[in-house]
Amino acid sequence: MLLHLLRLRLRAIATSSTKISYYSSSSSSSISISISLPFTFSSSMAATEDSLRKSLAEKQSAVEAQGNAVRALKAAAAPKPEVDAAIQSLNALKLEKSSIERSLQSLLAGSGADTREAFRQAVVNTLERRLFYIPSFKIYRGVAGLFDYGPPGCAVKSNVLAFWRQHFVLAENMLEVDCPCVTPEIVLKASGHVEKFTDLMVKDQKTGTCYRADHLLKDFCNEKLQRDLTLSSDKAAELKHVLATLDDLSADALGAKIKEYGITAPDTKNPLSDPYPFNLMFQTSIGPSGLSPGFMRPETAQGIFVNFKDLYYYNGNKLPFAAAQIGQAFRNEISPRQGLLRVREFTLAEIEHFVDPEDKSHPKYPEVADLDFLMFPREEQMSAQSAKRIRLGDAVSRGIVNNETLGYFIGRVYLFLTRLGIDKDRLRFRQHLANEMAHYAADCWDAEIECSYGWIECVGIADRSAYDLRAHSDKSGVPLVAHEKFSEPKEVEKLVITPVKKELGLAFKGNQRMVVEALEAMHEKEALDMKAALESKGEVEFEVCTLGKTVTIKKSMVTIQKEKKKEHQRVFTPSVIEPSFGIGRIIYCLFEHTFYMRPSKAGDEQLNVFRFPALVAPIKCTVFPLVQNQKYEEVAKFISKSLTAAGISHKIDITGTSIGKRYARTDELGVPFAITVDSTSSVTIRERDSKDQVRVDVEKAASVVKEVTEGQRTWEDVWSTFPHHSSTAADD
Amino acid sequence: MLLHLLRLRLRAIATSSTKISYYSSSSSSSISISISLPFTFSSSMAATEDSLRKSLAEKQSAVEAQGNAVRALKAAAAPKPEVDAAIQSLNALKLEKSSIERSLQSLLAGSGADTREAFRQAVVNTLERRLFYIPSFKIYRGVAGLFDYGPPGCAVKSNVLAFWRQHFVLAENMLEVDCPCVTPEIVLKASGHVEKFTDLMVKDQKTGTCYRADHLLKDFCNEKLQRDLTLSSDKAAELKHVLATLDDLSADALGAKIKEYGITAPDTKNPLSDPYPFNLMFQTSIGPSGLSPGFMRPETAQGIFVNFKDLYYYNGNKLPFAAAQIGQAFRNEISPRQGLLRVREFTLAEIEHFVDPEDKSHPKYPEVADLDFLMFPREEQMSAQSAKRIRLGDAVSRGIVNNETLGYFIGRVYLFLTRLGIDKDRLRFRQHLANEMAHYAADCWDAEIECSYGWIECVGIADRSAYDLRAHSDKSGVPLVAHEKFSEPKEVEKLVITPVKKELGLAFKGNQRMVVEALEAMHEKEALDMKAALESKGEVEFEVCTLGKTVTIKKSMVTIQKEKKKEHQRVFTPSVIEPSFGIGRIIYCLFEHTFYMRPSKAGDEQLNVFRFPALVAPIKCTVFPLVQNQKYEEVAKFISKSLTAAGISHKIDITGTSIGKRYARTDELGVPFAITVDSTSSVTIRERDSKDQVRVDVEKAASVVKEVTEGQRTWEDVWSTFPHHSSTAADD
Repeated sequence: MLLHLLRLRLRAIATSSTKISYYSSSSSSSISISISLPFTFSSSMAATEDSLRKSLAEKQSAVEAQGNAVRALKAAAAPKPEVDAAIQSLNALKLEKSSIERSLQSLLAGSGADTREAFRQAVVNTLERRLFYIPSFKIYRGVAGLFDYGPPGCAVKSNVLAFWRQHFVLAENMLEVDCPCVTPEIVLKASGHVEKFTDLMVKDQKTGTCYRADHLLKDFCNEKLQRDLTLSSDKAAELKHVLATLDDLSADALGAKIKEYGITAPDTKNPLSDPYPFNLMFQTSIGPSGLSPGFMRPETAQGIFVNFKDLYYYNGNKLPFAAAQIGQAFRNEISPRQGLLRVREFTLAEIEHFVDPEDKSHPKYPEVADLDFLMFPREEQMSAQSAKRIRLGDAVSRGIVNNETLGYFIGRVYLFLTRLGIDKDRLRFRQHLANEMAHYAADCWDAEIECSYGWIECVGIADRSAYDLRAHSDKSGVPLVAHEKFSEPKEVEKLVITPVKKELGLAFKGNQRMVVEALEAMHEKEALDMKAALESKGEVEFEVCTLGKTVTIKKSMVTIQKEKKKEHQRVFTPSVIEPSFGIGRIIYCLFEHTFYMRPSKAGDEQLNVFRFPALVAPIKCTVFPLVQNQKYEEVAKFISKSLTAAGISHKIDITGTSIGKRYARTDELGVPFAITVDSTSSVTIRERDSKDQVRVDVEKAASVVKEVTEGQRTWEDVWSTFPHHSSTAADD
Repeated sequence: MLLHLLRLRLRAIATSSTKISYYSSSSSSSISISISLPFTFSSSMAATEDSLRKSLAEKQSAVEAQGNAVRALKAAAAPKPEVDAAIQSLNALKLEKSSIERSLQSLLAGSGADTREAFRQAVVNTLERRLFYIPSFKIYRGVAGLFDYGPPGCAVKSNVLAFWRQHFVLAENMLEVDCPCVTPEIVLKASGHVEKFTDLMVKDQKTGTCYRADHLLKDFCNEKLQRDLTLSSDKAAELKHVLATLDDLSADALGAKIKEYGITAPDTKNPLSDPYPFNLMFQTSIGPSGLSPGFMRPETAQGIFVNFKDLYYYNGNKLPFAAAQIGQAFRNEISPRQGLLRVREFTLAEIEHFVDPEDKSHPKYPEVADLDFLMFPREEQMSAQSAKRIRLGDAVSRGIVNNETLGYFIGRVYLFLTRLGIDKDRLRFRQHLANEMAHYAADCWDAEIECSYGWIECVGIADRSAYDLRAHSDKSGVPLVAHEKFSEPKEVEKLVITPVKKELGLAFKGNQRMVVEALEAMHEKEALDMKAALESKGEVEFEVCTLGKTVTIKKSMVTIQKEKKKEHQRVFTPSVIEPSFGIGRIIYCLFEHTFYMRPSKAGDEQLNVFRFPALVAPIKCTVFPLVQNQKYEEVAKFISKSLTAAGISHKIDITGTSIGKRYARTDELGVPFAITVDSTSSVTIRERDSKDQVRVDVEKAASVVKEVTEGQRTWEDVWSTFPHHSSTAADD
């Protein structure tokens, strides 16, 4: 699927002004800080930048002119007061210039850039220190673009996948399959990946080090725009245009820009080769002969397409139905960047919903039509507006979203992401521009989540029409089609062209076959014209493309007539609507959206918290004996057993550390509830974000945690049911 | 981990007489049919075969002798009655010979072989027809050794994995990690896979077609033993010995046997190359340079070992702890066989339990000590006895199982497999023979499950001592060790050997380094002897291996003395106990163990049933409106919604087919419960194996199914609570 290539590229272009929220302080309220990311072109910002560049250029000319004037006065040995006055003017102009420079600098750096970087660093430090993830093979210095999920990360991932199965596969009765990663070449030739799943690469001509061509050009432009204050307004506009069209540049165009700007290898300053395509699939060989090339799949979707026939049969030969798959996919990045967002191996969860192209309605569409969230249709992007809240039902009825089924999945994806804990104000659905979509695609929307790296494409939802099934039908020779049986046979009139081969053979000898084929290939109108001409004139001139000439067809050489036929069914290639989830990207964005810092009780340090919903929290509950004491430990073990029986993941912490430190440790893992054993009859349950505590009987503790974890009751309900517990000593 | 190579090989050797159970008839009772698999050497069978071969050889000689006698009589023109009598004797001898041949043939073929083959075919047909699995890339004629799980197979797999997480990770608070499949070469060099993860291969010298050398030899021996009735008893014994020692043959020994037996390429009869090792890892290249070789991991364990340091820290620097990983592993088989059992890509679930080598006790060991199941210790295998029931606690206390922790995991694996639905009478724990284990391993047991292919190794449980952590410490230079802090410092006396380099340099010049190293490498006793000798005689003769000669050491050249030191901690490399689960193999065996056939009510056909426990059943419940009718369909939809809310996977079947056919379809998927809507107020719930039905209110139906599916109540309890429903029409 060629679109994946585009789809899995980060888009940092053409976005509106950007907002990142930081959560802090002891209350759990959120503080939003609006910051401007560099190269985020809100129209007002662009106007300011442009006018600053122009003022700067004018002031620069003025400084130069005044400098010349001073020199001229000095050369002419003008009177001192006159020279002094001229120098004073010059200094004043220089001051004004500096001031403009500072404004431009601060605009370009983006006042929030440092904050954003600091925020990311705080999140990433916490994630690495608590083993949410680990650079793979670290003791061997790692491999770029490969990461392990450590215990809490792995638990978050398996919770996200379990909820995905519940929310999509189970709720929609999807047919889940599980196909291998090792894939023979022919499958990926049919899908187009062997030919087109490439990035453009350049090599350092001396050392052979490889770089992604578009990255070098992008870095050059960004660097220039950010640091070079002498850049003319025109030049700045040019560089911005290059950035905006980076994804569309051909190898030649990229190469020409690299030459034009004199870009060299970043590490050595050596000259670079011309850009050439590098296939991003990990190649291998299947079996011992070395003669059967294979690849590690770049996506899971092909495994579903090649099974269409069996799955359609399994579904009772009925449309629509959806198949789904969760699995590893691979992409041999030229130079991985951006931590967990651009990696060489990742987990995809993909759905292929097969539907009659003539009926893309969805029975459960009304359930999502009233949802209302940020959408960013094509038109708004083209006219430099920003994303806006639209009722999904309106987007579908106004034709912004192509069809009901596509709309239904957009709605379901919105519900999935927000229930995981993605902030709905930093989630938008962006429609692909015409130049981003493959020619066959009917409509494509990306669920983009905003994080410190910008807006990140995390889910692609595409109506890919019949492209994939047709490609595999053609390559394999196995028709991947659906049938619609008519309740009663339909009579259809068909034009039948029957060349008389004997006559044609006599007339055209060795060319007979080409003439026969050309006759049979005539469109209806052409054939009817010929029929009329033959009936009136007895013969007709006929151009045979494959012969490159015109021949004379006589009445005896062909019969053309309309025949009535009864048809019992319609045979067609289904359309496929494909929601495709990059699980690792969703999880990384979730980490950023749920992270906040709050001061410790003593106020001497900042404590990290992940406010994961219980659904995704890696551990649902910790159990602490307040002090080291055998009786309390026995109660803790009793509660632990009850939690295990209830299937609630939890951890006992019997270290002698202060209870405040133990809370801090557990908050940093995003554990929503903590049970503190401070007596043998009752215990306290603390909620992570409010830090509120209630007192509950030992026997009831596990079941209360189970209910509030699995969503049968809310914390508010627990809070209003059980006696409150306040401990001044607890949370320091 | 080299052992995996051995571990993941099917063992068809040295097993006792074999039993496969078939379940049939309308009751759910089981009928066990004892059949003998070919080349299963129970001692009594071996004795019979041997005596039959001897009788056959004798009878053959007798036939030849009598034939000669007849010819001699004819040549001598003996009287007709005499010739006739001789011919009669000859015919009688020939008849006796045929009878022995038939006995031998039937013994060799194994009276159950056909039944076993037919049973497997019935299971596999059902599995493929109902899309439990699908040969991958089928429309492109597939790839040997790659299979997809279709919808029901995929659901079974994800249920098995969810239960594995519950039973091991959650219950034991294991640290689950998730590492990439793509692995750089250095990691697999350290583990030994680059050098030793190989199978021996031979090539057709003309066509280049590749074969596994041991397979060809095995097939040759089996064929001979099964079909060649003229085989002498000695030759038969030789071939059997070859089969029994196949895994231990070196490349040279295998090549010699292939030459000796004149084995040629099976397809062309061309001569074969000598055997040479073929590495079974799928190789690839990481990054664009082509200079960083990588492999698709052959197991998940290495990802855990390389993270030991971080995981130990995460666990508060405390032992013991276990890490776990579920993931894909790859093995580029030379020629895949045996369907789902030997494949090129598979899911492993592995546990690495790190423990102090000086304390392998386990706190939860008493919970499993009273389990009692089939074990097959080394000694019983060597003395040709069969597996026997042993109480796990006895096996540990008698030292048959090396330690408590290993015993604990054997017990937990037993519980895991039997709760999935593996028949406990076809599950045994077989201890590795001394020659199967790596030198460093303390003890290894395989959970073997019997299916139509024989006893299949599905879980390996090994105490691998410190091997893996040491290998990675050595290669990476990062110490992967644990620390035991002493409560108070311990005073230890250490022998310190200090060579006096100046003196040694004067005496030995260029050989100085070798002498210094030899002195420093002395064991305690050797050093103390030297100290005594130097003190009494002033000099001593000393052999330096690296120099290949003896040198004279004088008192001035070395000081040897005992010093007292205070140590604050013990630093050591932990032992690892590793249970490693081949998920695909377990699932295939589960398919065979849960499959049975029963006649339809009309008795005209055999219906297939999988008696999956609800825990693993792909779908827990089907909902049928008895007849096509809007009211019933609304009830069905109401129940379906309640089931979805309760998280119970289910399917509605509203086709107009007879209810009996719909039950049969659902039985074939192993769905344990079916709700039939035959009124708007109450419905029937049917249990799959008993076919018993109860009547339940519409509102209660979903919750009853939830309770009985999740194990909160038994079907017996449901059966005794609700009114019974009997429908004569239902089950035809």
